Parts: sequence; C-alpha cells; structure tokens
Amino acid sequence: MDAKSVIIKKRQNKELTRDEIRFFIGGVTKGDISDAQFAALISYIYINGLTEKEIVEFCTAMAHSGDVLDLSEISNNIVVKHSTGGVGDKSSLILMPVMAALGLKYPQISNKGFAITGSLIDRLECIPGFDADITVEEFKKNISQIGVSLMAQDLNIAPAEAKLYKLRNSIGCNDSLPLVALSLMSMKLATGGDKFVFDITCGRGTYIKTREQAKKIAQLLVKLGKALNKETRCIITNMDEPIGYALGQNLELKEVINSLKGNMPQDLGEKVVAIGSVMLALGTDNKNLDKNAEMIREVIKNGSAYNKFVEFVKAQYGNLEYLENPDKIKEAHNKMPVYATDDGYIESIDIDMVGSLAHYLGMGKLRHDEEISKASGILLQKKIGEEVKSGEVIAYVYADNEKKIMSAVQNLTESYTYTKKKPQVKSKVLDII
Amino acid sequence: MDAKSVIIKKRQNKELTRDEIRFFIGGVTKGDISDAQFAALISYIYINGLTEKEIVEFCTAMAHSGDVLDLSEISNNIVVKHSTGGVGDKSSLILMPVMAALGLKYPQISNKGFAITGSLIDRLECIPGFDADITVEEFKKNISQIGVSLMAQDLNIAPAEAKLYKLRNSIGCNDSLPLVALSLMSMKLATGGDKFVFDITCGRGTYIKTREQAKKIAQLLVKLGKALNKETRCIITNMDEPIGYALGQNLELKEVINSLKGNMPQDLGEKVVAIGSVMLALGTDNKNLDKNAEMIREVIKNGSAYNKFVEFVKAQYGNLEYLENPDKIKEAHNKMPVYATDDGYIESIDIDMVGSLAHYLGMGKLRHDEEISKASGILLQKKIGEEVKSGEVIAYVYADNEKKIMSAVQNLTESYTYTKKKPQVKSKVLDII
Repeated sequence: MDAKSVIIKKRQNKELTRDEIRFFIGGVTKGDISDAQFAALISYIYINGLTEKEIVEFCTAMAHSGDVLDLSEISNNIVVKHSTGGVGDKSSLILMPVMAALGLKYPQISNKGFAITGSLIDRLECIPGFDADITVEEFKKNISQIGVSLMAQDLNIAPAEAKLYKLRNSIGCNDSLPLVALSLMSMKLATGGDKFVFDITCGRGTYIKTREQAKKIAQLLVKLGKALNKETRCIITNMDEPIGYALGQNLELKEVINSLKGNMPQDLGEKVVAIGSVMLALGTDNKNLDKNAEMIREVIKNGSAYNKFVEFVKAQYGNLEYLENPDKIKEAHNKMPVYATDDGYIESIDIDMVGSLAHYLGMGKLRHDEEISKASGILLQKKIGEEVKSGEVIAYVYADNEKKIMSAVQNLTESYTYTKKKPQVKSKVLDII
Repeated sequence: MDAKSVIIKKRQNKELTRDEIRFFIGGVTKGDISDAQFAALISYIYINGLTEKEIVEFCTAMAHSGDVLDLSEISNNIVVKHSTGGVGDKSSLILMPVMAALGLKYPQISNKGFAITGSLIDRLECIPGFDADITVEEFKKNISQIGVSLMAQDLNIAPAEAKLYKLRNSIGCNDSLPLVALSLMSMKLATGGDKFVFDITCGRGTYIKTREQAKKIAQLLVKLGKALNKETRCIITNMDEPIGYALGQNLELKEVINSLKGNMPQDLGEKVVAIGSVMLALGTDNKNLDKNAEMIREVIKNGSAYNKFVEFVKAQYGNLEYLENPDKIKEAHNKMPVYATDDGYIESIDIDMVGSLAHYLGMGKLRHDEEISKASGILLQKKIGEEVKSGEVIAYVYADNEKKIMSAVQNLTESYTYTKKKPQVKSKVLDII
C-alpha cells in the first residue's frame, strides 16, 4: 500500500477500506505522507465525496492521530458542546456555569490559537489571575467538584485534523460537507465526552453560508454520531449579526458577567436556552425541551448560575472582585461614537466587515507577531430591526490605537444598511436536528 | 487574485486566464504558493483537463520560471531532441555526433539528477577526463565550432516544471495527458532551440503504457508546438525491451562507441535512423525521410560520425585512447551468466524488472546517498524473438557488489518468458507524427 494508490483509488471514486484510511492518516501524522499528497486526496474527496463508512473511519483515525482525552473516570454521560463559530458569540461562556449549575459535567478545552475575535481563554484571562494553563489532573478535579473547568489545549489533540483544517482552507475546500463534518467530529472524539451537541452557525458571519448547508452538515453529524456510538444533536443558528452587543475581550467578559446577573441580551439568551435545553435532554432524564428551557431561565434568575461562575473562576485563580464589580474591567480610553446615517430601521450589518474590524482593532490575532488588545472593542447600541434616527448613536468603538479608531468608525458606519419598513427580526435559532 | 480562487476556478472547470496562470506559476516559483496548493490544482487539472490555450500559457509561464537558454547567436534553426526515456536507450548519445556530422547544430543539456539507469553524463564520464561541467560560453563555442556539445544542467531551468514533475509523480498524476505535454514542452522551451523532436517511448518500460496514449501526447505536442511557433514532430517508439544489448554505464558507452564504428544493434539503428531523419527534415532542406535515412547510414558507415564523436569528446577533455580502444573501459570483475530456462523463442522480457535490477546493481541512483557503480551492468545475449535452447546463456550480469549478483541473476532469469511459436518482432518505431 502506498499514498499514491490511495489517492488514485479515491480519484476513481472507489470506497477506501479501513486499512487504507488508517495507513493514510497514520502517514500524514508521522509526516511520511506529504502535504501535497494529503491536498490531492482532499481535492478528490471534494469532487467524489465520502461514504458514511469512510467518514467514520477517517474520524476515528484522525481522532486517534494524537492524544485522546479520557474523561470516563468523571462520568460516562458527559455532554460536550461545540460551536462552528461566529462574531461576538458568548453562549459557550454562559452555558458553562449554567449547565454546571444544573448538574451537568462541563469540560471545556480551548486553544490559544488564532481567531479574528480572540478565544474563550482570551476573554476569561481579562479577569486578573485567571489561569487556563492547568494540568489534566486539575482539570478533571475541577469538573468533578465544581462541574466545569477550562483547560488550554496544550495536548497534541488530533494533529491530522489540524493538518486537514489548514490544508482544506488553503485549497478552497471549506465548503465540502464531508470534510467539515470530519473535522468537527474527529476533534470532538479526541477531546473526550460521550454525547455531542453542535451549534452550527450559518449566515454571512461564518463559513457555512446557508441554512440548507448547515442542515446537511447537521444531518451528517447526527448520522455519524450514531455510527460512532456518540449520540449527537445539532442546533442551527443564524449568524447575520453579532450575538449580544459587545465585541472585544473586556467588553464581552462584562456582557457575560452581566448576563449571568440577569441582564442578558435577548438573542444571546435565545441561543443559550436553545442549546442548553438540548444538552440537558442528552445529559439528564429531562427530555422535554420546554421544561429544560424553564430550568435554565430559573438558574440564571435565582443566581445559581452566577454563583457557579464565581466558583469556577475562583478554582482557576481569578480575582473575584472583578466579577462583583465588572466596571473594574476597563475598556480603552479612546472611544468614538458611530452615528446612524439614515432614518428608519436597521436592515443589516455587514458582519464580515465587523469581523475584519475586530481583527484590525486587535481584539483577536491571526499571526504570532500580533498582539491582542483586550481593551479594544465595539459596543453596539442598536441591532437589526431596531428603529433609529439619522445622527443617533448606533455603536461605540473603543481602541488602544488612536490612529485606527477613525478608520474603524468610518468602516463600521458604512457596514449598516437601513430600511423604511420595519423588518421582520428572525429568530437566532433556526432548527434543532 | 489568490491561489485559492484559481484552484476553485479550475475545479469548476472554467478556463483560466493568462494572468491567473502567470500569477499561479509565479507564486509556485517564489514559494508563495504551497506544494499543497499546487497539488490541488494539479488534481483538478487531472480531472478537468486543460484547454489548448491554457496549456500554451502554462508552458510559457513554466518555461520562464527560471533561466532560459538563448542559442540564437549560434543559429535560428536549432533542432532539439528529447526522449521520454527508457531502459538502455543509447540513441541520444549516437544522434549527437551523427547529426553534427550532417551539419546540424546539436546542443545537449542533461542533468546529473536521479534516474534508475543513470544519465547521459554518467555514461560519457566513463571516459577519463570527460567534463560536462562547462560554462555556457564553452558550450556555445563547442556547438558553433564542432556542431555538438553536452552541458550539465546547473542552470536554474524551469524550476516550476521541476516542482510539477515531482508533485505529479507523488500524487499519481503521471498518466495525465496535458500534464505530461506541459512538462515536456516547457522544459524544451526553457533550454532553447527552434524546432523540437520528441521521442515518445511507450510500453512496459516507460510511464506511457500504450501506443494510443503516446499518440495523443504526440498530437498534443505537435499542436502546442504550432501554437508556440516551434515546429514539432514526434516519433513514437516501442519500449518493451532494452534498446541494444548493453545496460550500465561502461557497457553502454562501449556499445555507443562500437555502434559509431559500424557495429550497431539493429533496434538501436532503427531508432537512430528514424529520429535522425525527422531531425534532418526539420533542420535542413532535405524533407525526404528515406533520403535522410540514407545519409545517416552513410555518415556512420564512412566514419565521419565517429570522427565527430572523437572531436566532441576531445573538446570536452576526454581521453581519446578509450575511444580508440574501448576494451580499456572495464566492466566489473564479478560476472555471472543467466541461462534460458526453456527451449523456444524469447517472448518477452519484464523490462520493469530489468529497470529495477539496474538500480539495484547501482547503474543509476534515486537518492543522494546512493553511489553509481559505472562497472556494473547487464549484457543481453538474446532479445525478443530470438531462438534459444534451455541452458543457453541469454545474458551476463556484472556487479561490483558480489552479494547482489546472485539475486540479480535469479530475478533476471525469471523476467524472461518463452514461446514455442516464433513471435513476430515488432518494429521499434511505431509512428511518426
């Protein structure tokens, strides 16, 4: 068996065997099979697709290409959640204490890698003292005792998936259904857990553009989960504008704290409740989603979710004063308003542009030589569907870098469109699959 | 414009523009575009093919990705010949002095790279003193004065083609018609010359397996040559057994010298005459192939081709005593016969196996850490169609390495098949296109 023959077989649209798939992914991991050979295989997968059997084998092989986290000593009923990502989405950070408050075990592994809007870890590290660089033992202990923990991913998790991700991006294969499902599922397999919930974001602000694509990916993930003996559910959510009002590390953290204290933006709440209800249905005996939603609202309202958040932050050495008094978390001194340029209703926000601005202002980084500015951010004042008057403030831009703020304000101003007729505001939650 | 969008366009089977092709090949050359991205493009070219316009643009861009040799000061009517390769083929080495003796200017650039049976340079360097590491000036001077010269390729000739060649081999795309034509034509464009003759070898001993494939490649090359304003002809030749009797550096050189002295194996002569006639038809006013063939036979017979060879070797510092007395060129001490295992006629020789044995015995090398053994070789005694008796010697194996010789003899013995019925011996020259 050699790499070339596996590539040719896939080109000829013949089903690869378990042995062939293991051989290939093994070679990719060890470096015996070159990036060029992997890229050729990916290209032919793009053209010819993968059978369900092939995806299952690829998932398994890729999940086992590095370290695999074993959480079975904590529980055999761990529900793990993953989002395909978006701009300003704080639902993960809120679901962590909410689910723990409701008795689920919530292991969260996150990498410190590159993202235009920064990572979960970047956000929590705005709390002085907070440390995600904990050992696996500490991670497991926290989950057992508190119900939730966050560990920076310094394990060698699914290196073959990391390569697939990098390559498919560089050769324009990000819209391949089986390749996307493969990446998502193999990562989850490697990071442990017994049941999976995927938040499939779709729309302008993410790489899955349409609800139909998202549905197909969701259906495939559910099918795959079944084949892999990992019960899987997917929530399809709309990513046509930032979730909540805050963008940027400090601003987002403050929005999370305020949300857990009961002041949650409507759209963020909608996502948290929908995803959380499904997680509870998988991880507990409560199968009724409406009742689960009620329970989630209740633990937020009665403060037990917030208390769980305090417990979690304390266990990871964060200074609790900043939770009690979030105004201590300071945004940048340079602040400029963005004004509406028309009367009427906000029709759309160019979320791609907002993402680019987030990166431009330093909220996230894409290269090693970039620095994250925690105090930079955007605070929306108005969202899609809200009525505005020309000249009214619709957002504020905060920036460490004085020079960048003018250009950001200009671009953000232009990223809004207006309409005279009140638009129907779509629900953020589109489907549960 | 970015690499990804060019890849996606080719995947969608849309014709790439000149600008896109130049951008891509430029990026490949500079290293801005990764091997993985080039491999993806190659994969989609394999699937969707290339239009004639695209091939012309790729050829031009690849030819100009490095140094381009300009021979116009010598002549504007230089005919350059290229063979797609095979086992034991000495026709290039013989055509060099033959064509020069007939007045053509014959520039030969060869690389010292990796080949299972070694290179043209390896063979000539069996003559003590012979030096192919000459300057471009010396090369041009030799061609002007003698008519022929051989220069080791230390120029940066078509680096993008080198990458294409390496990649298409590693991802199983060697049987792609446009990719093969692309490689062949861009190399020729870069190494100078005004008219091209390709010897397209086909059969078990080369990467073009069938006469039909060879014909298609030939037709494409002729068409491309026309589009590029470089008149092009192709000879399709059969490579089902080694050409001539000798394999290995010293043995092949001796066969060349003896051929030029009038003792040329029949099949080798057939190739030399066919290719040479076409070269003359392109490079002189003599368009009649039969008359050209006669002239070629004549310069070999009357010794002027041999004299030209002497001149050529002398100009590149070779010791002429070895030409006058080729027995001074010694084969390895270890020599073992290979015996026929059946009565009848030789039906076939597993030429792939012969090629592997050539490499195994050290006649060529595929890696930097291998050493070429000039004295190793195989000297056939019988070829396809010849009558043999069981136990008769059909070949000799020569090896520096005593341990390898037994296994080589065993394998070579098994690579022959026999038949009771006299097989029809096919001509080596199949088509002229």
